[in-house]
Amino acid sequence: MIIVMKPGCSDAEIKSLTLRIEQMNLKAHIDIGEVRTVIGVVGDTRSVNIDYFSVWEGVERVARITKPYKLASREFISGHSSFPLDGVSVGGNEIVIIAGPCSVESRTQLLETAQAVREAGAHALRGGAFKPRTSPYAFQGLGEKGLELLAEARNVTGLPIVTEVMAPEDVPLVSKYADVLQIGARNMQNFPLLHAAGESQKTVLLKRGIAATIEELLMAAEYVLSHGNRRVMLCERGIRTFETSTRNTTDINAVPVLKELTHLPVILDPSHSTGNWQYVGAIAKAAVAAGADGVIVEVHPNPENALSDGAQSLKPERFSELVSQLRLIAQAVGRSVAVSAHAGQSV
Amino acid sequence: MIIVMKPGCSDAEIKSLTLRIEQMNLKAHIDIGEVRTVIGVVGDTRSVNIDYFSVWEGVERVARITKPYKLASREFISGHSSFPLDGVSVGGNEIVIIAGPCSVESRTQLLETAQAVREAGAHALRGGAFKPRTSPYAFQGLGEKGLELLAEARNVTGLPIVTEVMAPEDVPLVSKYADVLQIGARNMQNFPLLHAAGESQKTVLLKRGIAATIEELLMAAEYVLSHGNRRVMLCERGIRTFETSTRNTTDINAVPVLKELTHLPVILDPSHSTGNWQYVGAIAKAAVAAGADGVIVEVHPNPENALSDGAQSLKPERFSELVSQLRLIAQAVGRSVAVSAHAGQSV
Amino acid sequence: MIIVMKPGCSDAEIKSLTLRIEQMNLKAHIDIGEVRTVIGVVGDTRSVNIDYFSVWEGVERVARITKPYKLASREFISGHSSFPLDGVSVGGNEIVIIAGPCSVESRTQLLETAQAVREAGAHALRGGAFKPRTSPYAFQGLGEKGLELLAEARNVTGLPIVTEVMAPEDVPLVSKYADVLQIGARNMQNFPLLHAAGESQKTVLLKRGIAATIEELLMAAEYVLSHGNRRVMLCERGIRTFETSTRNTTDINAVPVLKELTHLPVILDPSHSTGNWQYVGAIAKAAVAAGADGVIVEVHPNPENALSDGAQSLKPERFSELVSQLRLIAQAVGRSVAVSAHAGQSV
Amino acid sequence: MIIVMKPGCSDAEIKSLTLRIEQMNLKAHIDIGEVRTVIGVVGDTRSVNIDYFSVWEGVERVARITKPYKLASREFISGHSSFPLDGVSVGGNEIVIIAGPCSVESRTQLLETAQAVREAGAHALRGGAFKPRTSPYAFQGLGEKGLELLAEARNVTGLPIVTEVMAPEDVPLVSKYADVLQIGARNMQNFPLLHAAGESQKTVLLKRGIAATIEELLMAAEYVLSHGNRRVMLCERGIRTFETSTRNTTDINAVPVLKELTHLPVILDPSHSTGNWQYVGAIAKAAVAAGADGVIVEVHPNPENALSDGAQSLKPERFSELVSQLRLIAQAVGRSVAVSAHAGQSV
Repeated sequence: MIIVMKPGCSDAEIKSLTLRIEQMNLKAHIDIGEVRTVIGVVGDTRSVNIDYFSVWEGVERVARITKPYKLASREFISGHSSFPLDGVSVGGNEIVIIAGPCSVESRTQLLETAQAVREAGAHALRGGAFKPRTSPYAFQGLGEKGLELLAEARNVTGLPIVTEVMAPEDVPLVSKYADVLQIGARNMQNFPLLHAAGESQKTVLLKRGIAATIEELLMAAEYVLSHGNRRVMLCERGIRTFETSTRNTTDINAVPVLKELTHLPVILDPSHSTGNWQYVGAIAKAAVAAGADGVIVEVHPNPENALSDGAQSLKPERFSELVSQLRLIAQAVGRSVAVSAHAGQSV
Repeated sequence: MIIVMKPGCSDAEIKSLTLRIEQMNLKAHIDIGEVRTVIGVVGDTRSVNIDYFSVWEGVERVARITKPYKLASREFISGHSSFPLDGVSVGGNEIVIIAGPCSVESRTQLLETAQAVREAGAHALRGGAFKPRTSPYAFQGLGEKGLELLAEARNVTGLPIVTEVMAPEDVPLVSKYADVLQIGARNMQNFPLLHAAGESQKTVLLKRGIAATIEELLMAAEYVLSHGNRRVMLCERGIRTFETSTRNTTDINAVPVLKELTHLPVILDPSHSTGNWQYVGAIAKAAVAAGADGVIVEVHPNPENALSDGAQSLKPERFSELVSQLRLIAQAVGRSVAVSAHAGQSV
Repeated sequence: MIIVMKPGCSDAEIKSLTLRIEQMNLKAHIDIGEVRTVIGVVGDTRSVNIDYFSVWEGVERVARITKPYKLASREFISGHSSFPLDGVSVGGNEIVIIAGPCSVESRTQLLETAQAVREAGAHALRGGAFKPRTSPYAFQGLGEKGLELLAEARNVTGLPIVTEVMAPEDVPLVSKYADVLQIGARNMQNFPLLHAAGESQKTVLLKRGIAATIEELLMAAEYVLSHGNRRVMLCERGIRTFETSTRNTTDINAVPVLKELTHLPVILDPSHSTGNWQYVGAIAKAAVAAGADGVIVEVHPNPENALSDGAQSLKPERFSELVSQLRLIAQAVGRSVAVSAHAGQSV
Repeated sequence: MIIVMKPGCSDAEIKSLTLRIEQMNLKAHIDIGEVRTVIGVVGDTRSVNIDYFSVWEGVERVARITKPYKLASREFISGHSSFPLDGVSVGGNEIVIIAGPCSVESRTQLLETAQAVREAGAHALRGGAFKPRTSPYAFQGLGEKGLELLAEARNVTGLPIVTEVMAPEDVPLVSKYADVLQIGARNMQNFPLLHAAGESQKTVLLKRGIAATIEELLMAAEYVLSHGNRRVMLCERGIRTFETSTRNTTDINAVPVLKELTHLPVILDPSHSTGNWQYVGAIAKAAVAAGADGVIVEVHPNPENALSDGAQSLKPERFSELVSQLRLIAQAVGRSVAVSAHAGQSV
């Protein structure tokens, strides 16, 4: 951290600042220039807020040099970390495809979708049992009943289950059924939930908040990682901007930026990041071309009757087509879409 | 809700849509125009997502007419609702001033601040015992110990306590100590927490999420109100935009917009909405001039040593000056700053 | 400017960087720390792009210390600069009120409005003869005919004229009729236009671009100031954000921020910053409470028939009421609304 | 356009509104529902501002049904329009690649870059002679001298020239030298410039403004098209959001959205949309995968010495590599990168 003093600041101001830095068990390295004095703060400044010193008398500007996250950084693990999700190595050379309905609505709907996405080549099944909904009057999910249906779908198709958990006290319950705990965008900074998910040692799919910076996403991952849980997938799912022609704006830049800043796998959710099934295919392909390690896509056998997010769900036949296209894009960037262990499995 | 069909849509498309509308216990009112057919959807459409029908064949555009919230609306309660906070009627003609440190750090710090803000004329004391922090390495608050100190400060000063609760399971504990439960910006859409706060029947101070629309803020309030808990104060605390010269952008427009859309009291937090103590006074005055029912301001006896948000905290003497200025602005708009019941109380 | 090198950067990298800095007639001040080397760049770095050095091998981060504008800064003129607009001193203790229709539509409409705003106490008349319109099919203004009507309105009411100029080649023409040249938000970075407006030596009202940072606004002002034209009023008129309940988001923070960074007067346009006449009064009052030097307000005798921006225009009687309220707010912050020299003038 | 009246609006209000609609040569189609009355406005409402009727007594909400642009729409030209740029058909099955330095700096720099990008397979040369710069103290371009150098580069390499024009009065001059007139992001709503560019009948590359919606981009194109100039390429170049880890946020969604809304070709500028050469390749590939018709990329032989935008410029060897990668992505989506007519040309 570098503290740039105002021209003409007093010795007393520098001294008082230095004293405070030392009280924080940090070292102050003072560089008196011709015009300005610059104080370098040496030590573990990750817990120091960037705004902290800006309030002091005589201070003009404070800049952070080192990144505020550690376990998520490429300085901590220099390559790319990967971990298995069923047969696929997430974060490795293969692209992972997660698919399924927004919400678990019924046994028929879920099993039908699960089999369709398995046949199309998906590696995991997504589906929400606990649903965060803007309106208290909207369908809130089937709860534990939904989790049981997901477990049944896994039995039938062999696909691992990705499902959302919304409250710290639900982590043990959801962990009983799920292979991957999803933390939704609205909960990216629900710190008690992040602690509980870290503690569970389950694989976590962490969605970026709708207005979270990339740095904040990595800080949220740091909460999970700090419990020794290394299995975190980051998920770009669109950010909120002024543009209204799509539900959100896919921050495609986040893909190469994250691949540079962190060793964690990065996936993209084109269903939420566009909000419109017509654009899902284009953006899924863009994600893989840009270097994403996978995609998570909403599929519904009958989007017109979906209880949530119908507008952004693909029909199974379109999803199947998309998987074929993603294979071609993956090849074009020197990667591949794994053949799912369950693709040919009889049911 | 109005569904505008594409020119040349088929009768079958209209029929299938109509059927679905009726299955949802709504009525379809079909208006066949020269160029386009428009279907009016009549009934309680609050639970229907605006995107729902946009996916159907033949549909061009869907527009909502009625608002998706009900209990928070001026159609439900036509005037302004108000409720007492200690001696002041929040949402009435008087302006309420809540002040105190960002975090409870120590007994001395809290009591000193509490007495200072009481003397300056504040009506309630704010202070965080559970702190949501971007970094897992930052000070996370004193927890229950902090709540006990807040209770002690109330005993000493008579000021009611406003403090944040971060997890549904903490609501009973925090409710034991607090007069007002604060739901922070990051938790505005933490629905299990909103349910728990509603259930508690405590007064709730609901902060707008950093990228939440005004409509989403009202929907979040609706979660609390749906438990029969009518004591909700809405709080504008700045939104995230491209501008970086202040920590957030104060959405001052939100004040008159909210006063038009809802009967609930509206307060503004100039400390978070600017992130810089130098701008707090100007924005607090702007808030009252624009029609806000109160402000919540961070005050710290020694901002240089604050464990969080020092840069945006006022020193007690500046806060005292600000209260005087707010009295003048309140008068200029035909309102007043209540004289706190505890202003002259001996300690 | 400070260049922070990566840990372990090579001597050759530092040398090549130093050489380049010296080629630019700047001085490099090298500070070799225990962990990192920091290079201070001394000299006039205003023309150096902050991104320039970030591409060099071995560089981790570049931070600017001095501001990239000079003539607009408080370091250049330490107090507040003011200049006369008819009888009022803009930027002084008095609040200036500019009012009038969005577009000049007809002689009757303009003269009627001009007299109404004069009677209500406005100090200058606004009205567009050249109109920037999103659609090529919308009314584009009366052009020179509109300018002539504005000149007639000045003759009749005595009010100075504020009107927009859209192209550098129109500056001489518009200058013949106008007292103040308005540069619209869409043209804030139309650099040939800024040069021409600077050259004209007319007073300039410079509107902030819809997505311009405060620093960019000051850089745009710098273009005008660099021609020796010191009469620049800055105008906050709302920025574009995700919020859709108002046309734009009033960045009220910009008022105290600009008053700190620059000596130039700051006015606010609540008509464009809200887009809704119902909110104009609240935001105008907020502006003055926050320290603005004036407001510019759209007034139309018959908003229902306005050819542009009717939704955000006040009727004359509401405007008159607003002026009275602004007098009270001005007093509350120790300022006043000047009595217009023309307020009681017979016509 | 649909006008939804408030419940309980009066007959007089409906009548007055109907009258006004008819005065505008439009037809009012009144549909009196059980709860609400809806007025359909039939006719050419493209020039009517959406806010226009919202101010009327009795009106609750106004929604536009038809798009406000016509010539740019898929309803006007149902397929995709294409036009030749030297040997390539822009908007056809082939991907066009435009490359070159941000600014023309010197004869050597330009010719060296031109030959390098030609050899790598680019189809056109970009380079700025007139440069819009945020700071008046920054390099403003070589002006006509730069245009002459561009013409020389065309003679030597055979590549057509894409260069920016900043003021309407410069259009004839720039047209003498350029094959394609670039309208920069800051000038997307410089309407006099759009008119002049339309009038010139030159091919226009229109960049999206930094905070322009997709609809506004199409309206700006409409200005050019309204002069009978059909050769307009739209260019996504990043929008301004809260995220600061890249210079702008690439709105990749804009690619499929534009391909659906308009027949005009769509290209993407990954250099400006990321601001960092390290991310240019990933985003260029994403663009082609998402369906873009081309890319425009900054290339500089010596980015460390570039007078502008060095940080986002590729070195020639990296650009050459990128062209190879784009060939693979193009194939994966059933398209191809044309072999430039000049690729093997001796110099």
